[in-house]
Parts: sequence; structure tokens; C-alpha cells
Amino acid sequence: MYKVDLNSDLGESFGSFKVGCDEEVTRYVSSVNIACGYHGGDPIVMGKTLDLVKQNGIAAGAHPSYPDLMGFGRRNMDCTPAEINAYVTYQLGALYAFAKQRGLSLQHVKPHGNLYNTIAVDEVRAMAVAEAIADFDPSIILLGLAGSKTLEAGRKCGLKVASEVFADRAYNEDGTLVSRKLPGSMVHDPEVAIARTIKMVREGVVVTLSGKTIPIMADSVCVHGDNPSAVEFVKNMRAAFAAEGIEVLPIAKVIA
Amino acid sequence: MYKVDLNSDLGESFGSFKVGCDEEVTRYVSSVNIACGYHGGDPIVMGKTLDLVKQNGIAAGAHPSYPDLMGFGRRNMDCTPAEINAYVTYQLGALYAFAKQRGLSLQHVKPHGNLYNTIAVDEVRAMAVAEAIADFDPSIILLGLAGSKTLEAGRKCGLKVASEVFADRAYNEDGTLVSRKLPGSMVHDPEVAIARTIKMVREGVVVTLSGKTIPIMADSVCVHGDNPSAVEFVKNMRAAFAAEGIEVLPIAKVIA
Amino acid sequence: MYKVDLNSDLGESFGSFKVGCDEEVTRYVSSVNIACGYHGGDPIVMGKTLDLVKQNGIAAGAHPSYPDLMGFGRRNMDCTPAEINAYVTYQLGALYAFAKQRGLSLQHVKPHGNLYNTIAVDEVRAMAVAEAIADFDPSIILLGLAGSKTLEAGRKCGLKVASEVFADRAYNEDGTLVSRKLPGSMVHDPEVAIARTIKMVREGVVVTLSGKTIPIMADSVCVHGDNPSAVEFVKNMRAAFAAEGIEVLPIAKVIA
Amino acid sequence: MYKVDLNSDLGESFGSFKVGCDEEVTRYVSSVNIACGYHGGDPIVMGKTLDLVKQNGIAAGAHPSYPDLMGFGRRNMDCTPAEINAYVTYQLGALYAFAKQRGLSLQHVKPHGNLYNTIAVDEVRAMAVAEAIADFDPSIILLGLAGSKTLEAGRKCGLKVASEVFADRAYNEDGTLVSRKLPGSMVHDPEVAIARTIKMVREGVVVTLSGKTIPIMADSVCVHGDNPSAVEFVKNMRAAFAAEGIEVLPIAKVIA
Repeated sequence: MYKVDLNSDLGESFGSFKVGCDEEVTRYVSSVNIACGYHGGDPIVMGKTLDLVKQNGIAAGAHPSYPDLMGFGRRNMDCTPAEINAYVTYQLGALYAFAKQRGLSLQHVKPHGNLYNTIAVDEVRAMAVAEAIADFDPSIILLGLAGSKTLEAGRKCGLKVASEVFADRAYNEDGTLVSRKLPGSMVHDPEVAIARTIKMVREGVVVTLSGKTIPIMADSVCVHGDNPSAVEFVKNMRAAFAAEGIEVLPIAKVIA
Repeated sequence: MYKVDLNSDLGESFGSFKVGCDEEVTRYVSSVNIACGYHGGDPIVMGKTLDLVKQNGIAAGAHPSYPDLMGFGRRNMDCTPAEINAYVTYQLGALYAFAKQRGLSLQHVKPHGNLYNTIAVDEVRAMAVAEAIADFDPSIILLGLAGSKTLEAGRKCGLKVASEVFADRAYNEDGTLVSRKLPGSMVHDPEVAIARTIKMVREGVVVTLSGKTIPIMADSVCVHGDNPSAVEFVKNMRAAFAAEGIEVLPIAKVIA
Repeated sequence: MYKVDLNSDLGESFGSFKVGCDEEVTRYVSSVNIACGYHGGDPIVMGKTLDLVKQNGIAAGAHPSYPDLMGFGRRNMDCTPAEINAYVTYQLGALYAFAKQRGLSLQHVKPHGNLYNTIAVDEVRAMAVAEAIADFDPSIILLGLAGSKTLEAGRKCGLKVASEVFADRAYNEDGTLVSRKLPGSMVHDPEVAIARTIKMVREGVVVTLSGKTIPIMADSVCVHGDNPSAVEFVKNMRAAFAAEGIEVLPIAKVIA
Repeated sequence: MYKVDLNSDLGESFGSFKVGCDEEVTRYVSSVNIACGYHGGDPIVMGKTLDLVKQNGIAAGAHPSYPDLMGFGRRNMDCTPAEINAYVTYQLGALYAFAKQRGLSLQHVKPHGNLYNTIAVDEVRAMAVAEAIADFDPSIILLGLAGSKTLEAGRKCGLKVASEVFADRAYNEDGTLVSRKLPGSMVHDPEVAIARTIKMVREGVVVTLSGKTIPIMADSVCVHGDNPSAVEFVKNMRAAFAAEGIEVLPIAKVIA
């Protein structure tokens, strides 16, 4: 029996600004990454999102970001490692309090947006994130790009790590993602995307944009819940997984 | 031997905006109330403030506020009890993470500014704060105005509470503070302020603006570290306490 | 020929947070109130919203708010008159710059949310808003609740004012709106709402919740563009207006 | 007779966070760059700062920044040219409203912090700033680093530009500033700094860190008012200028 986690970013609404089909997507994923107020999410939203997690019996993680609500954490900010460590610590602690209030624990941390991309290649900043997590609770899993500096840093800090793959993105021969600015970077056909993901999970390989087959570790697949068709895709992927003998489980059980 | 806590608001700097003589005042107080990012304080400042706490072997508490950096949390915001509960939970968790990072624990929570004033008289909002603390960690002490709804709410939620008094404020006959808008509301003479405080601690009474002597519980005295003369006042108060056989101890030991 | 303005709040998206059917509703209204960054709106959104205004040949106004993005400007903040004056000045100037960039001018100011409600009854704060507008440009119209202190203050400052009515709200005998907390405060049936509005415009009267007919001045009708059915309602109202010989024109032409 | 402008960043306080010796430094400078709320400054502070400008009969300019209050606009944010244009437009309009309220006009724009540094070398982003200014008011002067892309962009957009020099910074042979990370980047001796500045103004040259004499255009000298000794330095520089026959005038008169 194969097993894999499905994770989705959640709780990114802010005040009166509602985004995402959070209720729908929580029915199909096994882990959610919850915004902590820096790129989205606010204290009311964080609590409600954890209520959804609890109702669905899935696993919760923190989704910390640079402090850039206007840019949704997607643009680079030249933060020092000390700042990054402090920002992750702040957001992780804040979410932890809401989890504790509901008798839940935090399974993992997945950095958001540009912070995710930055630490995939920047060893020093990856260590800043990993150390913040290890200092807070060394049993929390660090979820990052398969093959990235993020995972290396997590291991160095004694954290358990999980490798994330993308169903709808093309890969380079070195295992990095093809830049969105390049043609062919996205896999638009849902069936192809699902077939690729199944191959990653069952065989541990992916075919690169150049046509080469390379190894890839797939502990968790990133899916989206921004709109109804994204949710439909997740539902279909989950059905396809069932048909292929792939069990969907929270990260902690996948990497156990 | 008498005992009392001296508490001061700390860590209210934000980014490049430096306020307060934090290093100086931490030499004389026994407990500090640390801003958590909503009226002042940022993740870097929170960590540094807890470093000071650790160096001085004093006790730390959270100083949560309404989300109003521009107004420094001093103006009323009509937040619902659910919002207040969530804001306190968020800030308390965030500070907790920095404390944990340093092997420290949080001794108490003292709400800031207008939130402090509001819950002193608003039972429902006082419960919102107390419940947030009790859900997070019922061993955390709630520090509030002596005789206020804040302390009642804390007790109802099973929290230990501590009564705060003010050295430089006049009192009404019902134990509330004389509004700052009225003449005579402030005690300007430092020696008078210190003598009043000693009387509150040793005898459990204070002379009101009207001249009547009323009972008052003084577990902790609020002092300031905004400027060098405020720090000088704290230093003098501490010396006067020593001369009068009053021991200065963190709240937890005062109310034990 | 009767004439009236249809106004809608617009440009309330913020960063990646998209709200409102702005493109659709601008086809049916004659004036729009544009968020200026304090409760919604950001510099990119403000520019795009004015682009829509220009394309549709309608009129633009500022929609200033308290500085409360998390609360969407809907909760009371106890700001001083000086703060309110400064906040309105800031937001009005900011929007003006985007209008100038597009060769547009600002027709009016309609305060947002709790600020709108507060100055409808608070003379001093209403003056703070009116003075800010008059100092910036005395040809800008102040749009406020029919019969409110807002309009009185505008007149005192030499501004032209416009009376706003609500299609879907019940009125008290003194011309104020029935509190949303009371039963019967909302007019849910779209046809009734449209009929009431036509009566306000053609006859200058409205039937109160108590059944009494009172006079009301209707220069501008507040409509919404939050969702497709709200837009549908505006479209239907506009068609009904045409059938009743009511011309829809920007505020400036209605009150000319 | 030689002439030069002395400019200083001002109005960077925010809410209760007071920074800078604004009252003192306005006695000695001829132009001030006023924060507009994005890295410092708030609507109340902006008004008060312009009051100071008016009292001292000096010239005011906008000091727009990236939206990064926590980082004081000093760290790089990867904003698009469209975002930069919109942020400058927003802040310029906001400050303009406070100037208009006081019967003042805006003389110039000097971008703040990392935005200043970025556009000194990034042609596209420099154009984004220059176009925002030209669209708002083509009579406003763009103040930027001597020899930078900033000034080139301003000229392309038809703006008048002014070259800024630094009294306390070392120069490279290509006219750029020596990075602060390198030894020798700062001129610590106040007398040397003043002598260098006089040479820049009178002779149009500066001696580089490597010992070479290069041409430099000095329309305006950047000075600071952060603390009393900085103000003392400005006072001394102004006295030295007087002794050397250098008149201190607002930028507009220097470049006229």
C-alpha cells in the first residue's frame, strides 16, 4: 500500500476579505497549512480554520510568511536570518495558542510564498526557519520542496522533514521547478497532472520538461482550494489515488 | 516582612522606533509586561526584551492590546468579546514562543491601554480575556486593576489574579481611579507617591481624593520606564521599600 | 423629469484579496465611492478602480475610513476630531493623486462604515470631516445620510451636500435608520425596495416602520456590488427608474 | 556666491513613537523630506511636520517608501514598477493634501531608504518613480543621488532634478558611494566631513576613497536630525558654509 499526504494552504482570509473554499477543500486533504496573520489570516480566521481542521479530523500546520499583507507574502523581502527566525517564531506561537485552545497540536510548518522559495535555495535562511521550529518544538515536521535546502536545514536541526511535490508544475533535471516565466512550466491538463503525481508517489520518479526521468521523493502533494474547480481537481485526485491503491494520510503518518 | 511586585510595561519599541529605557528599568522591577506586536513590540523586540528578562532574573508577562499601532492601543475600539478573546490568544501565543525559545515561562498577562480600562468595568469583555488565558495556560496570573471586573473574571475562570495599584494616581471612594481629565487626578510629588504606595502595601489602605481612607489590595505596583526620571523614581521607590521592610518579588511569589 | 444618483462602494479589494463585482456594478451606477487604503483598497486597486470609472464615464468620490483594515472600518474607534480630520485629509489626497494621474477629478466624499454612522449624529466629528474636505477642495460634495449632522456640518463649511437614502432599510419617524438589531430593519423584497425608492425620489417621502409617511430628501441611492445578485438588483432598479421617468445622473448633476 | 541646499529626512515619528529632533533641525536646513506613512509618519505627524516647515519658511518634499513600517523602508522589497509608481503616487497625494491644507506647495520628492538605493541603479524602477511625479505635478523636483539613474529618469520625464551628496560617506571612482560594509566607507571626523562638503560645493569635486579627485554635482547635501549631535553637526556645517561664502537655499533656488 502506498501512502501520501495532500496539503493545502488554508485560512488565508483576513477580516472581511474572504478567500478560498476552505470548507470544501478540508473534506479532501489530509494536512492544511494555516496562515498566521502576516500574509493572510487573522486571529478570528485562525480559530475558525482550526475548528474546520478539528471537524474533519485532519492535521494542521503553520504557514508563516514575511510581514507583507499587501503583497500576500509573494514578493521577496530582504529579511535577515534573525528577522526570519523571529517572524517564524512569532507566527508559530500565535497559531499554537489557537490549536491549544481546541485541544489540537501542530503537525508541521510549511513556509509561505517567497519565504518558501527563498529557503529552498538559501541555506542560511533555511537554517533560520529550521532553528525557530526546533527551538519551539522539535517534534514539529518541516514541510518543504523535495530536494531543497529547506529539508537539509531541517535535518541538521534534528527535525523530521517531508518532501513536497507539485502536481501541476514541470521539473528541471536537477529536481528544481521550471520557472513560471518559462514556457511549459505548468501542467494544464488535470488528467496528466494526476497521472504524473501517481507516478511520483508509486515509483518515486518524475519526467522532466526535457524528457528525462529523475528520482523524486513525494511525501506530500500540494493542492489548492482557491476556487471550486481547484477543489474538484483535489476530489478527482483523491479518487484516482484510491483506485491506484494510494492511501491519503497526514504527513506524520506518511513519513513515520 | 511585607512583599510586593513592581511591574513595568516593556518592549514597546517597534522596528526602528525605539522607546523606553528598557535596560535601565529592568534592574529595578520584578515583573515586566511585554508588548506583543499589536500596539508596540515586534518579533525582534520581543526576543530582545525576553533576553533582558533572563539576564535580570525577573518575571515576564504578556501585554496584549487592541490591534492599533497608530493609536498605541490607547483609544477605544469596539471589539466583540470573540475578537478580544482571539486577539489575546494570538498575542499570548506569540510571546510564549519567544519565552520557550529562551527556556522561560510566562508568569502573567496584563492587558494594555484601553483594553485594560475597558475590562476593568466590562464584565463580558473581562471574561473574554480571562477565558483566553485559562484556555492557553491556567497557571498564568491575570494582573488587573485592584477591585476591578478584570480580577472577578479571572477568579471565575479559575485563574490566580493579582491586584495592581498606581503610585501616582488619585483614587475615588469606590476604589476606582480618578479620571485623568479631573483636577487632582495625578500625584506629582515623587515623595508623596512613594509614601502612598508604602501605605498601600503595608496597611492595605489608600487615602482618596476626597480624604477618606479606603481599603486597597496592592499585589503589584505599576511603574514606568519611559524616560530617565521615571527610572530614577523606580530606583528611589525600591530603596524606600527596602528601608520600610518591603521585599520586592515577582507577582507569583507575592500572591503565593 | 426626476433625477437621482446611484452610488456604490468600490475598490475595496486589498492586495490579493479580491472583493466586489466592481466591473459589473460600474455599468449601472452613476457615482462610486472608492476605498483609500484604510479599510480596503490599496494603491494598485485605487488606480484600477479609477480606470473603471473613466471607462464608464461615471463620477468618483473618496470613501475614507478609520485605520482598521482588520475590522473593515466597521467598528467604532474613538478617534479625536483632529485624528479624523487628518485621516480624511490623508485618504482624500491619496485618491486625488490617482484621479489626477488619469485626468479625472473627485466629485464627492462619502465616509465609510462606522465613520459614516458616527458623524451622522456627532456634530464635532462631522465638522472634522467637513473641514478636511473644505480645506482640500471646497468644490467637492459631501455625501451623507439624509437629515444627518453630516450634511449640516457640510453646509456650515460651505460645501455642497447630497442626501443619501437606502433602498433596503426601514426608517424611523425622525428620519433615522431603524437599527439593524431590530426586527423589520431590512427590506428584503427587491420589488418593495425598488418601489419605496421610486417613491422617495418622485414624492420625497418614505413610509416608516411604524406606518407613518415622512418627508425625505433623496439625492443619491446607496446600492451594492458585493455579489451578482446585488448587481442584478441595481440593474433592475435602473430599469424601473427608466420606466418611471427617473434619470440616473452623477450627484453633481442631481444637486445642480 | 555659491549656493547649496541642506536637506534632512523629517516627520518619521509614528503614533506614539517619537523619533528625530525635528524642531531643532528645521532651524538649520533649507529643505525637508517628509515621511508619508509607509516607513514612518502618520496623518497627524505629517500635518505637524508641515506646520514646522511653514514656521521656518523652508521647503517641503515627499519622502515616499516601500510599504514596510517594521523595516523602516530600509530593506529591499521586490516591488514591480507598477507597484512603485502606485506607492509613490499614493504617498505624494497624501502629503500634498496636508500641504494644501496649510497653503504650502511641495517642492520635491526624495525617495526613502531602499527605494532610494534601488532606483539609483535600476533604470526601470527609476522611471516608475519619475513618471509618478511627472503625472502628479511636473513642476516637482526629483532629488536623487548625484550621477544616478534616478536623475536620468527624472530628466527623461521632463522633471527638474537635483543632485544629492553625502558629507559623511566615501565615494568610489565612478561616483557611487562606497558600500557601508567596506572599511573606510564613513567619514567620521566632522571637520573632515564639512571640508569635503565645501569642496564639493565650491569646486564640484570629491576625493575618492582611492585618492583620486573626481567631479561631482552638489545641489543638495543630506544631513541628519536623529539626535542632538547630528543637529550640532548641521549647525556647524551651516556656519562653515557662511564663512566660505556658500549660501544655503531650498533646492528650487539652487537649481534655478
